[in-house]
Amino acid sequence: MSAKSEWRVGVAGLGTVGAGLLNFLSERSDFAPAGAGARVTGVSARSRSRPRPVDISNLPWFDDPVALAASDEIDVFVELIGGSDGPAKIAVETALKAGKPVVTANKALIAEHGAELAAIAEAAGVPLLFEAAVMGGTPAVKMLREAMVGDEVTAVAGILNGTCNYILTEMEASGRSFAEVLAEAQRLGYAEADPTMDIGGFDAAHKITILAALAFGCAPTYGAAEIEGVEAIELLDIRLAKDLGYRIKLVASAARSDGGVSVRVHPALAPHEHPLARAGGALNALFIEGARIGRIFIQGPGAGAGPTAAAVAADIADVMTGAVRPVFQKPAGELKAFTPVDAAHTHGRAYIRLLVRDEPGVIAAVSETLAEAGVSIDSFLQKPVEGAGGVPIVLTTHAVAEKVLTEAVRRMAALPALLEPPRMIRIA
Amino acid sequence: MSAKSEWRVGVAGLGTVGAGLLNFLSERSDFAPAGAGARVTGVSARSRSRPRPVDISNLPWFDDPVALAASDEIDVFVELIGGSDGPAKIAVETALKAGKPVVTANKALIAEHGAELAAIAEAAGVPLLFEAAVMGGTPAVKMLREAMVGDEVTAVAGILNGTCNYILTEMEASGRSFAEVLAEAQRLGYAEADPTMDIGGFDAAHKITILAALAFGCAPTYGAAEIEGVEAIELLDIRLAKDLGYRIKLVASAARSDGGVSVRVHPALAPHEHPLARAGGALNALFIEGARIGRIFIQGPGAGAGPTAAAVAADIADVMTGAVRPVFQKPAGELKAFTPVDAAHTHGRAYIRLLVRDEPGVIAAVSETLAEAGVSIDSFLQKPVEGAGGVPIVLTTHAVAEKVLTEAVRRMAALPALLEPPRMIRIA
Repeated sequence: MSAKSEWRVGVAGLGTVGAGLLNFLSERSDFAPAGAGARVTGVSARSRSRPRPVDISNLPWFDDPVALAASDEIDVFVELIGGSDGPAKIAVETALKAGKPVVTANKALIAEHGAELAAIAEAAGVPLLFEAAVMGGTPAVKMLREAMVGDEVTAVAGILNGTCNYILTEMEASGRSFAEVLAEAQRLGYAEADPTMDIGGFDAAHKITILAALAFGCAPTYGAAEIEGVEAIELLDIRLAKDLGYRIKLVASAARSDGGVSVRVHPALAPHEHPLARAGGALNALFIEGARIGRIFIQGPGAGAGPTAAAVAADIADVMTGAVRPVFQKPAGELKAFTPVDAAHTHGRAYIRLLVRDEPGVIAAVSETLAEAGVSIDSFLQKPVEGAGGVPIVLTTHAVAEKVLTEAVRRMAALPALLEPPRMIRIA
Repeated sequence: MSAKSEWRVGVAGLGTVGAGLLNFLSERSDFAPAGAGARVTGVSARSRSRPRPVDISNLPWFDDPVALAASDEIDVFVELIGGSDGPAKIAVETALKAGKPVVTANKALIAEHGAELAAIAEAAGVPLLFEAAVMGGTPAVKMLREAMVGDEVTAVAGILNGTCNYILTEMEASGRSFAEVLAEAQRLGYAEADPTMDIGGFDAAHKITILAALAFGCAPTYGAAEIEGVEAIELLDIRLAKDLGYRIKLVASAARSDGGVSVRVHPALAPHEHPLARAGGALNALFIEGARIGRIFIQGPGAGAGPTAAAVAADIADVMTGAVRPVFQKPAGELKAFTPVDAAHTHGRAYIRLLVRDEPGVIAAVSETLAEAGVSIDSFLQKPVEGAGGVPIVLTTHAVAEKVLTEAVRRMAALPALLEPPRMIRIA
């Protein structure tokens, strides 16, 4: 394949990333180091006439992305349609079965059907690349797929959703509520009209599922991810966490142990000095822990037309090299689904916030309840907060089994002085 | 090449990295994702009998690394001998000319002879890979060579020498002098018996030369690097910089402009909040600025047998994929040497420290001299320091042309109240 002097590229999906890619390829058709050119020989999108920041009038148009994927006029198929099923999946399958390399930015597709698609790609002997699916222009996928193969990765953890990170950063900076900042993010185009995928943690879960599969040589197993979003994060918690020296972040993590693989997305408190706490706004950041290499940290823009289109272009250049490697770390036939680790067996520290009536004996009752449950307190803060409608008590625990924590929270919820259910957030 | 089921590996140089690699390959001969095995079929080193943390008695021994490089018994040659010339260079040339892929950790060799070796490799159609030459196990080379090709890199800057970083970190943490900490680092094995390559900035200059070549698609041009080491850094400067909110780091940087490429290694003050200031001890860290992607930051261990051997192994796995790409960003025939940017035309801020006699009018004389030279002061600190043998005055400047700064420093050196020449350190 590497001897080709020009690669004909079909692009399905012409949103901001697709338009960015077309602009890049028209300006820099000779971008690939190996010297071959790239020329767009077919495009497809839902609407041909929609205004776009790129002129597509001279490009061959396909009403049906699947017809583009099957076309003899393209050598590589770029899928930017999105969605885990429907036309994106059918088009990718069609291209792979026709022996065409596929480059996609579609995290839902890879997280939910990655193993199946890897099997098709490897049977056809063509690459299926998806650098742009995770962390935009920051090459997390390449790092895990290629650079860490001389090591055993034990854990990955990071901030993978720029929308949530923007909202949490803005809440802290401006003192506005989640709802207010979300509405602003929607106006600015940083959040979708339906923000569920982002704020519910599902987008980050797709991404960490892909990274876990690459890190541990498993089939992406989206169904095994535990997912908690940021919708319930209150300004009060952001403020109290700050007083304790922490910042609240949506952390996506995956770890391998003898018991299996845990893949989780949930809000977590990171100490102010921690690199994840310091990655603000729309930045993405990731730690990779290797048994031999130690800890690598990578940070960069997680989205945006420029970075994402650059990642797609880098994948196209990789296709041109003719490299043959498995889509995940093992041949598709050997990929196994994650064996989820029972969360009840994991250990960790937590932040717990209670809103209590201002009356004698409350602190004693809280601390007795925790002691009885077997939870040991690391720090304790009672602080009047204007407009909180009661007295907030926050405490951080020492590391303890998660099931012990859950039980302690259940017992505290039953205390008569509590004005609302306790709020527990894990500490990263 | 990718159809091979087993790759026979020849390893020349059996220091800590070589021994680490042999251990890795004996434990994990099936590490490569593509499914092929790797078997060591030849080793060479200066001494066969020297005690090593790995048993080499069953491995075919070659007295001459060049004979190993030429041997029909190996498919890939790993060069861990070191040194820019001599046996390392001859062995690498021999292997490439014999059509054998080469993996090396030798930064001096690549920084000084990279373009020449790239031409040989590309003529033979085999890869020449050197991930382990820069940042140990942290994949800076792969990022620049492969992940950034859909972008135009404008600048890279980072901490690339773990020994200097360890010494500077320890000086600040322990309040000991450069000489004391260096002696300790030598005892602990963190610094060589002859530390010149590290503390003189030459090792970092080799590394930034390689990164600049990859980033900008030029021939590595070691001779064009401006190099200043850390030998002259005094504890006094570390303390005064700290008071001003900075930490002194050895920063290696490369930037492309219309005028050419600047490649520099010098001590620089980084604000405490800056990620480079926060990379302590033996960590390496790097910023990559792309026109489209924006700013990517990567941090990890820069040396050590484990990380470096893992990087060599990842390169061996890359060889197995059969990928064909230029050694640097362009085919070797198109590589041009850097056109150095005249430092006199660069702009920047600086820290200037003076040691003056405690007498009236000194501050006025200093500030007048600076004003006459056209340098504007950002902050000014006069602080008695016990045992300094005079009164230290430190100031930071606003951004100004470097030639203006140099002239201002020259004029200040002539002030009668000065007890020693002014000390200027750039601000990152």
